[in-house]
Amino acid sequence: MAKNKKQKVKRPKALPPRGLRDYFGPEVVERNEMLGKITDVYQRYGFDPLETPAIETVEALGSFLPDVDRPNAGIFAWQDEDDAWMALRYDLTAPLARVYAQFSKDLPTPYRRYAVGPVWRNEKAGPGRFRQFYQCDADTVGTPTVAADAEICGMLSDTLEAVGIPRGDYIVRVNNRKVLNGVMEVAGVLDPFDPTKFEAERGIVLRAIDKLDRLGTGGVRALLGEGRKDDSGDFTGGAKLSDEQAEIIMSFMDARCDTGGATCTRLRELVAGSDMGLTGVQELETIAELSEAQGYGSDRLLIDPSVVRGLGYYTGPVYEAELTFEIFDGKGRKRQFGSVAGGGRYDDLVKRFTGQEVPATGISIGVDRLLSALREKGRIGDQDNGPVLVTVMDRDRMADYQTMVSELRNAGIRAEVYLGNPKNFGNQLKYADARNSPVAVIEGGNEKENRVVQIKDLALGKDLAADITTNEEWKAQPAQMEIKRADLVTEVRKMIARADG
Amino acid sequence: MAKNKKQKVKRPKALPPRGLRDYFGPEVVERNEMLGKITDVYQRYGFDPLETPAIETVEALGSFLPDVDRPNAGIFAWQDEDDAWMALRYDLTAPLARVYAQFSKDLPTPYRRYAVGPVWRNEKAGPGRFRQFYQCDADTVGTPTVAADAEICGMLSDTLEAVGIPRGDYIVRVNNRKVLNGVMEVAGVLDPFDPTKFEAERGIVLRAIDKLDRLGTGGVRALLGEGRKDDSGDFTGGAKLSDEQAEIIMSFMDARCDTGGATCTRLRELVAGSDMGLTGVQELETIAELSEAQGYGSDRLLIDPSVVRGLGYYTGPVYEAELTFEIFDGKGRKRQFGSVAGGGRYDDLVKRFTGQEVPATGISIGVDRLLSALREKGRIGDQDNGPVLVTVMDRDRMADYQTMVSELRNAGIRAEVYLGNPKNFGNQLKYADARNSPVAVIEGGNEKENRVVQIKDLALGKDLAADITTNEEWKAQPAQMEIKRADLVTEVRKMIARADG
Repeated sequence: MAKNKKQKVKRPKALPPRGLRDYFGPEVVERNEMLGKITDVYQRYGFDPLETPAIETVEALGSFLPDVDRPNAGIFAWQDEDDAWMALRYDLTAPLARVYAQFSKDLPTPYRRYAVGPVWRNEKAGPGRFRQFYQCDADTVGTPTVAADAEICGMLSDTLEAVGIPRGDYIVRVNNRKVLNGVMEVAGVLDPFDPTKFEAERGIVLRAIDKLDRLGTGGVRALLGEGRKDDSGDFTGGAKLSDEQAEIIMSFMDARCDTGGATCTRLRELVAGSDMGLTGVQELETIAELSEAQGYGSDRLLIDPSVVRGLGYYTGPVYEAELTFEIFDGKGRKRQFGSVAGGGRYDDLVKRFTGQEVPATGISIGVDRLLSALREKGRIGDQDNGPVLVTVMDRDRMADYQTMVSELRNAGIRAEVYLGNPKNFGNQLKYADARNSPVAVIEGGNEKENRVVQIKDLALGKDLAADITTNEEWKAQPAQMEIKRADLVTEVRKMIARADG
Repeated sequence: MAKNKKQKVKRPKALPPRGLRDYFGPEVVERNEMLGKITDVYQRYGFDPLETPAIETVEALGSFLPDVDRPNAGIFAWQDEDDAWMALRYDLTAPLARVYAQFSKDLPTPYRRYAVGPVWRNEKAGPGRFRQFYQCDADTVGTPTVAADAEICGMLSDTLEAVGIPRGDYIVRVNNRKVLNGVMEVAGVLDPFDPTKFEAERGIVLRAIDKLDRLGTGGVRALLGEGRKDDSGDFTGGAKLSDEQAEIIMSFMDARCDTGGATCTRLRELVAGSDMGLTGVQELETIAELSEAQGYGSDRLLIDPSVVRGLGYYTGPVYEAELTFEIFDGKGRKRQFGSVAGGGRYDDLVKRFTGQEVPATGISIGVDRLLSALREKGRIGDQDNGPVLVTVMDRDRMADYQTMVSELRNAGIRAEVYLGNPKNFGNQLKYADARNSPVAVIEGGNEKENRVVQIKDLALGKDLAADITTNEEWKAQPAQMEIKRADLVTEVRKMIARADG
């Protein structure tokens, strides 16, 4: 900086890189509080926190992102001094796989871990879509039992209620990739002895099912056959299945019945002949039974064959938490809020490092989506509790004002003294307004002499504040009262309680 | 991954990049709890949280790190697709300056903000020194009053006590760069009309003072003169001051008296003739007065001319919190724990963006050092509260076991069911040991029939656990008791209370 003084200074732009943003005050507090409630549930379920560094080697991360629908999705990567490539993590699962491969001898088996933190994607940012965002994951590594999957589904349900989504406003949908594969086998697009055969067709089928919400059954049916022309005239090639094959897939998607038991019975018929499919149905039945026994009935957990999720990744049960209440979208149309969390079983991630298959299952909560759901429901958003402001009437008596804030703080009340230029009292009140202060404390020379102070209910007086600039005008208002200096803490506390109540 | 199946797989190494590490279970919990206590104090003082992205543009960060003693210290930087350079933040102050420059119109003035989060340095890592670490900062931007500095020193004091450092075990030392500059002026190594003159000499003087702890007065005196040869024979060039000049500097370092008032009187004599120096002493006096009035006496806050801190940066008061209790260093020698936090006033950071000087002052807490101090004092470290383990005696009755953990969790007790292969009961107990479980719950077929369960005090039985492999052997131990199934929650809670007590 010293050097710059002599040169013509080229000023840096005061902007973050594109696609990144800052979070202020209540936004940070609200997110932290929500994450605290989530991790309390995770902790109670016996999950242990793990915090990995933001940076991993590129080889440890792997060159793939979980969602194969976006193959161009990128990472932020650079070369270290010794030319090794390193990158910011794009999720919390890849680092978990690295940690488990590195420390498996020291970790308990099974290893239940949770992780909370930002991840980074080098993608085009859009409205509400940023290149850094939070994830909040819980995974159980090292056990093949679907009791682990059932546990995670139950935990997901408890978590949603803990953060403030009432029962009835969410549903956890469960499916199983093995059932899907069984249906594919029955339809003749999966050969258990040659898993690579028909890979392209299966990809199209899976993506089609994933789009059921958007395209409807007609659209999906078209994609199973010759293909589909969308409204803009663009044509998407289909899987070119025969009518008979396509019907098998369509009946799978339509297999959901009123109860989990009935759905499983229907699925069992559909996958008859496929060992993998039958195993999958059996697993779904076990999950439904275990959940039912713990009180997670069909009002909270639903076997739903239409759930597929990020397809390159999962090997068994997959699950998704949806919020079922309605909101208005950008175009003023009512729609369900939709998915806020999801996950499933993935048995191959640790294998990349060690060669050994390590069964694992887990969920990831979409922190920002869940936050915005809670805002929609009015569960958060009024947490901007500003500090009590002790105003400065006489700048030579800062010590007096500091003593007042000390007393308030020692009593647990958020409080501060005005540290700007105290000359203009109106500025102090504007400041209190900007800080969302509930109460202002005023002690001029007269008050000091009489051992009293004025306290001002700013919540009550907020509407009038714009027009008031002098202490005298404030005094004339009903929201202001004179109290004994000795009663400062008691009276301020009362006034805050009134404002909150 | 599908592709890899056909190729000869080259396995990635399961390691983080060098200089980075993972944090497990209690380490994460302990740090979060400490940070929670710190930010509670910050919040109570009226500071608002701010969370900026990990990534900034390189131009916004600037190319300098705060500590000019390590000019080679680097950042992790890379080029974005549009060739713009971006980098991971190396501290939390540079992003604050960018935010304040960007949003000053929307932010209250003064703006009190706190920030917590990791920062990254592309430096050589060493023992206990990592390339990602936490900082926890609080700054007041937009006011020149030293009341803001006094407030931050008091808050630092409160913060240390809030996390568990008892009064008497810490001291906040305060100095003022203006006093230092006044002394330089008196000694003839600072010309107020040409601040660039004698820059090199001043740099040597400041670095020498900063090393007083390590070199002693003799070493510092040598560096003020011709230079100093260290034990290894290496020679460091000195500032080549005359004896008279050097004596002025030396008496400044020695100016600390028993009370802040006496120290200020002494300093006033030393800077006589320098306006800047006198302003600095006046500021120190005000800080001491304001602090004293709020009860921060010389047992907590000390005017200390030997504090200099990162020198390229500060323009007024500087402060440092030191822990004064003794520990044994790596070589078994007693020494004071030393600095855990520091900061000061910097008025030029926002100016880089806007051209306007914005006064600001703040502190940064060394999160890892403070954590290790708390471990030294035994204030943290026993927080590894493992979950109650419900063992699996009959794998067909998972629903029963899951129901037990549900009951325990609903009562707020951390609990889990064993999800590994239940065949070998000894493995279940080893798992409980690895998890640091306080209690194991056992329900075999007989127990189920008689509506009882066994609960096992694992804390009590821990020493014996290694030799015990069957349920029968456990039953023979005094730490195990049979209880009614209906009393599960009550009895487990009692047993945990006993283990804790």
